[in-house]
Amino acid sequence: MSGVFSTAMPQTNEKSPAGADVVLRALRRTHQIRDLRPDPVRDEVLEELLQVARWTGSSTNWQPWTFIVIRDRDRLTLLGELLPNASHVGRASFVIAVAMPGEKPEWESYDEGRVAERLLIAAEALGLGAAMGWAYGPRRAQVSEFLGVPLPGYVRTLVSVGHASDAAKAPKSAPGSARKPLADLVKYERFG
Amino acid sequence: MSGVFSTAMPQTNEKSPAGADVVLRALRRTHQIRDLRPDPVRDEVLEELLQVARWTGSSTNWQPWTFIVIRDRDRLTLLGELLPNASHVGRASFVIAVAMPGEKPEWESYDEGRVAERLLIAAEALGLGAAMGWAYGPRRAQVSEFLGVPLPGYVRTLVSVGHASDAAKAPKSAPGSARKPLADLVKYERFG
Repeated sequence: MSGVFSTAMPQTNEKSPAGADVVLRALRRTHQIRDLRPDPVRDEVLEELLQVARWTGSSTNWQPWTFIVIRDRDRLTLLGELLPNASHVGRASFVIAVAMPGEKPEWESYDEGRVAERLLIAAEALGLGAAMGWAYGPRRAQVSEFLGVPLPGYVRTLVSVGHASDAAKAPKSAPGSARKPLADLVKYERFG
Repeated sequence: MSGVFSTAMPQTNEKSPAGADVVLRALRRTHQIRDLRPDPVRDEVLEELLQVARWTGSSTNWQPWTFIVIRDRDRLTLLGELLPNASHVGRASFVIAVAMPGEKPEWESYDEGRVAERLLIAAEALGLGAAMGWAYGPRRAQVSEFLGVPLPGYVRTLVSVGHASDAAKAPKSAPGSARKPLADLVKYERFG
């Protein structure tokens, strides 16, 4: 945990609040689980996730989203068939689709990333797995129509939630190796 | 915590893992703190935040970002002057600017939202405050040049980290009232 700093910062004696380690560990470890089992989950799980989504910040607190919960098995299968690049949709216990107004594309993409990220972290905290699906190209209009979203609104983000399969629980790369080292990612004061 | 569900889901007897409540509380409560004090913070805090940033997921794990840490007081002041809509930059203990490659605008905006969100949550867990600044319009090129980011790369997101002022700690709205109610945000199976 040393060697990252090019120069020392002034030190204080403050300590981190209780629970900080639990939250930081969740933030370091949460990743997408695409190999899901669609077994039922408790009602409380969906309620918790929707509260997390609700409290996510958005640009100027405009809360541009509508969260469409899809739980019907036949509809999940059909939705998964519309999204061959996000086959986890068809294996989810439920999906939260994020309907957006289609007014400010750059801002909406950012805010969707924010809320999808909180949902991902919350699902992992609850002992489940979650994955983010993207509807793009001609799929976006198809998915939006399937979900009844009126133009210019659309659905780009679909968060699949379910149980992690045994295969999904196995590490896919050596510990700590799935990301670039900090030395390659961090600069001080200037990029170059 | 009831009344949200239009139909019941099948129930299981599973319980949430240890620590879930701590993480979920952090996810529900974290919000931007713009009224910052620029007092020093421990080196470990920056290291923790950079590790959280490093481990944030990105589309196809492309890790498009470079994190530029700005701690020099004079540079923070100058940067803040470039961003009148993000005056917290000039009051931060340090800023993490997210330099992006400028190759896939829609994806980059999304991934920036993801990493900024993790940083916000991590800063709050560490007992600090953080705010997201956006460089947009002509400011984006000015900020990117100031930080030495070569074209077509750019900086849009700057995460300011510091100590929450006493004013920032006071609630700005009645408890629970700063977001729309779930009933206005959630639909089942279809938007309309």
